[in-house]
Amino acid sequence: MPPIPAVQESAQNYDGHHGPLIDLSQAVPGYPAHPLLLTHLQESARQPELLGYGKIEGEPTLRDAYAADLRQVYHADVSDAEVHITSGCNQAFVASALTVAGPGEKLLLVTPFYFNHESTLSMLGIGTKAVAAKAEDGFLPDPDLVKAAVTPDIRALVCVTPNNPTGAVYPPDLMDVLFDICVERGIWLIVDETYRDFLPGNAAQPHRLFQRPNWRNHLIGLYSFSKSFCIPGHRLGAVTAGRDIVMQIAKVMDNLQICAPRPPQCAVAKAMPQLGDWRDSNRAEIARRRDSLEKVVSGLSNWQIASIGAYFSYIRHPFEGSASVDVAARLAAERGVLCLPGAFFGEGQDAFLRLAFANAGCSELEELSVRLA
Amino acid sequence: MPPIPAVQESAQNYDGHHGPLIDLSQAVPGYPAHPLLLTHLQESARQPELLGYGKIEGEPTLRDAYAADLRQVYHADVSDAEVHITSGCNQAFVASALTVAGPGEKLLLVTPFYFNHESTLSMLGIGTKAVAAKAEDGFLPDPDLVKAAVTPDIRALVCVTPNNPTGAVYPPDLMDVLFDICVERGIWLIVDETYRDFLPGNAAQPHRLFQRPNWRNHLIGLYSFSKSFCIPGHRLGAVTAGRDIVMQIAKVMDNLQICAPRPPQCAVAKAMPQLGDWRDSNRAEIARRRDSLEKVVSGLSNWQIASIGAYFSYIRHPFEGSASVDVAARLAAERGVLCLPGAFFGEGQDAFLRLAFANAGCSELEELSVRLA
Repeated sequence: MPPIPAVQESAQNYDGHHGPLIDLSQAVPGYPAHPLLLTHLQESARQPELLGYGKIEGEPTLRDAYAADLRQVYHADVSDAEVHITSGCNQAFVASALTVAGPGEKLLLVTPFYFNHESTLSMLGIGTKAVAAKAEDGFLPDPDLVKAAVTPDIRALVCVTPNNPTGAVYPPDLMDVLFDICVERGIWLIVDETYRDFLPGNAAQPHRLFQRPNWRNHLIGLYSFSKSFCIPGHRLGAVTAGRDIVMQIAKVMDNLQICAPRPPQCAVAKAMPQLGDWRDSNRAEIARRRDSLEKVVSGLSNWQIASIGAYFSYIRHPFEGSASVDVAARLAAERGVLCLPGAFFGEGQDAFLRLAFANAGCSELEELSVRLA
Repeated sequence: MPPIPAVQESAQNYDGHHGPLIDLSQAVPGYPAHPLLLTHLQESARQPELLGYGKIEGEPTLRDAYAADLRQVYHADVSDAEVHITSGCNQAFVASALTVAGPGEKLLLVTPFYFNHESTLSMLGIGTKAVAAKAEDGFLPDPDLVKAAVTPDIRALVCVTPNNPTGAVYPPDLMDVLFDICVERGIWLIVDETYRDFLPGNAAQPHRLFQRPNWRNHLIGLYSFSKSFCIPGHRLGAVTAGRDIVMQIAKVMDNLQICAPRPPQCAVAKAMPQLGDWRDSNRAEIARRRDSLEKVVSGLSNWQIASIGAYFSYIRHPFEGSASVDVAARLAAERGVLCLPGAFFGEGQDAFLRLAFANAGCSELEELSVRLA
């Protein structure tokens, strides 16, 4: 059974005793989409010229708008031809994985990993190998361990930053080092930046890799419009890569579903230049929620924040030796707090729970001090 | 390069000399979606409750509506739990293929085959084997040849009826025989019925397989909302299968893109019960177009209809010995007629071109008598 529905089912055992369910399981923005975007969505949904098949690579307007966003965020030269639109970031990962690896080859993941990366590769017959990012290193991968893990069967290193599940933000210097390793070993660096619009601080660029003259030969960037624009139900994501890779991804996408749904692409393309301030204010709101959670947990003697960053916090629960799946199930059933067990994210994670704190408002998060105590 | 864009590019060489381009390449309905559906699409696009992630298996309302449609079309007992919604029928095929086969196993296709089936399996590391459906048999597969081709590495037989590219309609009796072979050999029968709403005649049921008590153990049905509701740009398809298979497909879909886009699902669910008459009238219109094309080609001494059915006709061109890719490119450049070369659909198909006659109105089709002459 897919992980998220499995956890959501366990909430059915909660009797409401402590108040409404606090759902910190699936990462979804806990505030509505902007009315302007809703109006664009409404208009484009019935536009006759968007009812037919579209370009496999995506609507030209969205590729344009997203390339402009990339140029601004990364201070780098990225063109619309280096963008491929997908139906969400999971699909961006599927298409990238199929492009760089085949059966018998492997991708290198960092544990704790995003579970769909692992299950996707397993489904495709692509092998995985894992490098542990340790709690004592702030859940950042140790470059020496990464280097040692890149055997000849590895086709790419997969990083998620800001990280899912830990929230850890990989510093630009670390990204440079990881990129250099990939260049040296002739493999790809696949960077999933689904949460990059929620970097704490009025963010400096997430990393400098798109400024590297050789990025097109070694870097594949993944992005999701779901979290940043609060429209996961419309399914939109993107791949940023050199033209050769974009062409390969187009072949994969043609097989997978021909093209991403067109009307939301056009709507988001229109909204992107209009919603800069709104995106900044969301970043600030997520930072406030982060502060709320941090305050709550630091007030509890037996719970501990192992990591906190953009969108997620990885919490050490007080039930040492218990399976995290059981702890999460009990939290759901007895306290009405829904979160994901560490065990979903790989080996050795049973001490932890993932809290998607971005889902809940500050007052809801403050409620946790009673529920967790 | 994916086949359709490759062919569309060749149209750029046409100078307009013979009048506007007649595009019979990609199968798209040559008439608009119903205004009622457009209104539903518009309403659902901005609905706040559809902005979040949805059920992996699809919106309950659409699974319900489509199951009702299945019960009516096939006079069979199919429940909403036996439906899985996807982003188009290509994705329904991807998910089904990944569910029944893995690397090293094979699916049995019927040549000429729908090219995306072959390229999808190749991309997934799943092998293919082909049984030729011969022109002299009306492009229907010979059950004895199918039986002989089912070696132990074959996990499923894939049929497309009405067929893409030939338009051939597999008679219910043949479907019974093919199903029996699959049962006997313990493999799956995957039936792609993207074009089943365009069966000629005010159609009897396309086949009787959903009435078989054991269909859930051997049959996987694929469907597309794109052609029937004129909304390929919104990306919606469906799988019909037993609950066990639906559960496996949910795991695949969770990896591929979590769920199909939600707003169009709700819009189509509302429209389905309202648009029965409209769907019937489209069926009649497609039949008229079929008659127009038949009349035009029968008036040309050196062109020959090898097969004609729902949506497509497979035409024998007069340039014996020429590569069909060259013939199609010349037709596009010199006569402004865009169609697909037989070679796209497998081995031994160079004598043919696929015409998606449903794309064009009757008067446009009549124009072909001059262009092809």
